[in-house]
Amino acid sequence: MRFEKPVPLQQIAQLINAELIGNATASATGINEIHKVEKGDLAFVDHPKYYDTCISSAASFIIINKKTSFPEGKALLIVEDPFEAYLKIVDHFRPFKPSMKLISDSAGIGKDTVIMPGAYIGNRVSIGKNCIIQPNVTILDHVIIGDNVVIQSGTVIGSDAFYYNKKTNRDVHYKKMASCGRVVIENAVEIGAGCTIDRGVTGDTLIGAGTKIDNLVHIGHDTIIGKNCLLAAQVGIAGAVTIEDNVILWGQVGVNKTLTIGEGAVIYAQSGVKDSIPGNKVYFGSPVEDAREKMKELVWIKRIPELWKRVMKNQGA
Amino acid sequence: MRFEKPVPLQQIAQLINAELIGNATASATGINEIHKVEKGDLAFVDHPKYYDTCISSAASFIIINKKTSFPEGKALLIVEDPFEAYLKIVDHFRPFKPSMKLISDSAGIGKDTVIMPGAYIGNRVSIGKNCIIQPNVTILDHVIIGDNVVIQSGTVIGSDAFYYNKKTNRDVHYKKMASCGRVVIENAVEIGAGCTIDRGVTGDTLIGAGTKIDNLVHIGHDTIIGKNCLLAAQVGIAGAVTIEDNVILWGQVGVNKTLTIGEGAVIYAQSGVKDSIPGNKVYFGSPVEDAREKMKELVWIKRIPELWKRVMKNQGA
Amino acid sequence: MRFEKPVPLQQIAQLINAELIGNATASATGINEIHKVEKGDLAFVDHPKYYDTCISSAASFIIINKKTSFPEGKALLIVEDPFEAYLKIVDHFRPFKPSMKLISDSAGIGKDTVIMPGAYIGNRVSIGKNCIIQPNVTILDHVIIGDNVVIQSGTVIGSDAFYYNKKTNRDVHYKKMASCGRVVIENAVEIGAGCTIDRGVTGDTLIGAGTKIDNLVHIGHDTIIGKNCLLAAQVGIAGAVTIEDNVILWGQVGVNKTLTIGEGAVIYAQSGVKDSIPGNKVYFGSPVEDAREKMKELVWIKRIPELWKRVMKNQGA
Repeated sequence: MRFEKPVPLQQIAQLINAELIGNATASATGINEIHKVEKGDLAFVDHPKYYDTCISSAASFIIINKKTSFPEGKALLIVEDPFEAYLKIVDHFRPFKPSMKLISDSAGIGKDTVIMPGAYIGNRVSIGKNCIIQPNVTILDHVIIGDNVVIQSGTVIGSDAFYYNKKTNRDVHYKKMASCGRVVIENAVEIGAGCTIDRGVTGDTLIGAGTKIDNLVHIGHDTIIGKNCLLAAQVGIAGAVTIEDNVILWGQVGVNKTLTIGEGAVIYAQSGVKDSIPGNKVYFGSPVEDAREKMKELVWIKRIPELWKRVMKNQGA
Repeated sequence: MRFEKPVPLQQIAQLINAELIGNATASATGINEIHKVEKGDLAFVDHPKYYDTCISSAASFIIINKKTSFPEGKALLIVEDPFEAYLKIVDHFRPFKPSMKLISDSAGIGKDTVIMPGAYIGNRVSIGKNCIIQPNVTILDHVIIGDNVVIQSGTVIGSDAFYYNKKTNRDVHYKKMASCGRVVIENAVEIGAGCTIDRGVTGDTLIGAGTKIDNLVHIGHDTIIGKNCLLAAQVGIAGAVTIEDNVILWGQVGVNKTLTIGEGAVIYAQSGVKDSIPGNKVYFGSPVEDAREKMKELVWIKRIPELWKRVMKNQGA
Repeated sequence: MRFEKPVPLQQIAQLINAELIGNATASATGINEIHKVEKGDLAFVDHPKYYDTCISSAASFIIINKKTSFPEGKALLIVEDPFEAYLKIVDHFRPFKPSMKLISDSAGIGKDTVIMPGAYIGNRVSIGKNCIIQPNVTILDHVIIGDNVVIQSGTVIGSDAFYYNKKTNRDVHYKKMASCGRVVIENAVEIGAGCTIDRGVTGDTLIGAGTKIDNLVHIGHDTIIGKNCLLAAQVGIAGAVTIEDNVILWGQVGVNKTLTIGEGAVIYAQSGVKDSIPGNKVYFGSPVEDAREKMKELVWIKRIPELWKRVMKNQGA
């Protein structure tokens, strides 16, 4: 999440009741997770295992639960519970103020765009020109939509990430990581009926220009989908995935989190993508393999009874 | 289904035009299916194969299509078509009177709970404190929701069971078993966007405290889900399943009806659970097996061509 | 798509700026795809590979991008881009004029049918008697629904087909084939919550009488489903499929496009139907096989390690 304008560290330290050491007069430009963080951002870390990764990341300012050494120019904000501090910052700078109107006053809607009955458009949503938002669609806060986009009935854009921190030592077992990111949908994207696209946790979920999505498709938080992809019905994509341009996923394909599918890859129906795979190839299976190899495998399996017979004969059984 | 107060058997016999024999002055406390029935309840049976099971069940009063012997203290209500009699009783004591308002006058909504635009709240729904019901959610009659619950957009709670009786000797091929049960959602449950949770047929569908559910998940009628479970996107669970505490189902997992998944079990993505499985283990495959065994199996399959070559060589082929 | 009344070819030629040769005084009764076209209809073809098929099809009038020979009595309408001409005709005769009311004035709703709050009923929709349309259902233009039909919450009927033409030589990569067909739902059909049923591209998507559909099911464009079928939760059926009467598809089954499933077939959960299959048999697997054969195969796979051991022993390894 980017702040609307840089925020003095001292203001943030006060908000989360932190001891501030290091570059105390600096200002923070936003707050992000370790793998998304940029120079000028805050990040938080609460497990000793990740201290080093976080302190040596691009993050300029680290919310942490232990005083430790850090590079010059950076700063530490020391608190007892960095995750709670993160939630407090998000709640302060991007508070949840539910719009109680079907179309929020702060939504911007372009020329020749049609919003049909029962559609909900949240706060600060921006929709471009010549779009069709069908009945009973839900577009939640901060979603950005380009021109010539079609969103069919019942689809939900900008739902919260399915992202929980386990808190076994408390009353609360799982605590939700607040989603303060956005969904960005580029020009000429078409999304079918009954889909769900989660917002980013701290960054953006992105659907690239010209991509077409069928019905009942799920796309997780912070996932980046390239241009001119085709996603058939009931495809499910987990969080923080990268799908490059011109990828085709056929029906009911599942994609595991944080991996990359290379440009031009084609995945046959009902396959499961477990790890990153290179582009310009055809895949099948769960977990996926080269489609032709997988097909051969299915033929080999059918030969097991004959193999058995031959082996028994060899043994004189 | 529990009646609001005990109902004299004679009143029920009159309603369904039954011959009443046995303990005719008793009152019934509710009506339930054989496997859910308790003392004081009515149950119905129409197939000779199940007469004994039903008569010797906990049910005190049996709606049946044949005069037969039964234990002292119980009663028979003899009718030509027990299933039709069941439907008549349900329709009488829990009639379908659709609310024509987005929020029914008989719904109870707790302090600090936010109901967003386009959400429908049916008759006698009860929602606790500090909940968020997002836009275009549908919560049907008799659903009970605890405190600190989040239900995301487009989700439907309390849909009818997919439960039909085959009537091959009639105009009607499949006749729906009326769903008169409820959905009960405990505290701190969070449900994603586009989910569907069916009500119980005669009992309750239950989601235990602290359980978190991702988008586009389906949960069938009378299914009991324990506390602090995680259900990832596009999971589908059939009817009358028991999922114990702390179970994790990853994306697109399917679960067959009436089985039990033991406490702490983890099921990998796209797996299919066909029969009951013990807890505290990791599973994979369709049908599921121990995940490590399944992984080994996938390696063994890749060795078939080599096996084939060796066997051919042995045979001098 | 059938025109409301026959349209003189000369009017159509003028609309799409075509050179008209052949039976120039005739009138067209409708416009359809090659595999659906009937005598009196227009069809279009833009790839030399399909010229012959189209010209010798039932189509009376062919929109084409090359002057070529054709049977007597037929006519050619020659244009540079037949696909664009098709889109222009559809837009002219069945323009998209979104209803801005929850229930369109041109919708017809039968006696004792209940439309619950938040449901959207589009232009020229026809709903029969004694139906229940639950909250937040979306029924788009031109859908025809019989008597005694139940449609549960959140379901979308009449969404656009997922059908794109690749246009690699243009700015637009994929161009949508406009859906001008309908969805026809016969008597006593019951559809669960959160389903999506696409309209036909030029013809109808049909759900046969007495068929029951569970939650989160997707049905593609121009698919024909027979009478008294059961489709369990999260089933996905692609476009232009034929499912004959009394077929049962269990949960999460996927069905490939344009194939036929024979009468009375039963497909076990999570299976994938890749090609047409005969009726009155039980199937399992992805791709599906005879269920018993598939089960045996799973047992054979478990014997590979023993086979390996025996072969190694034979070789004295």
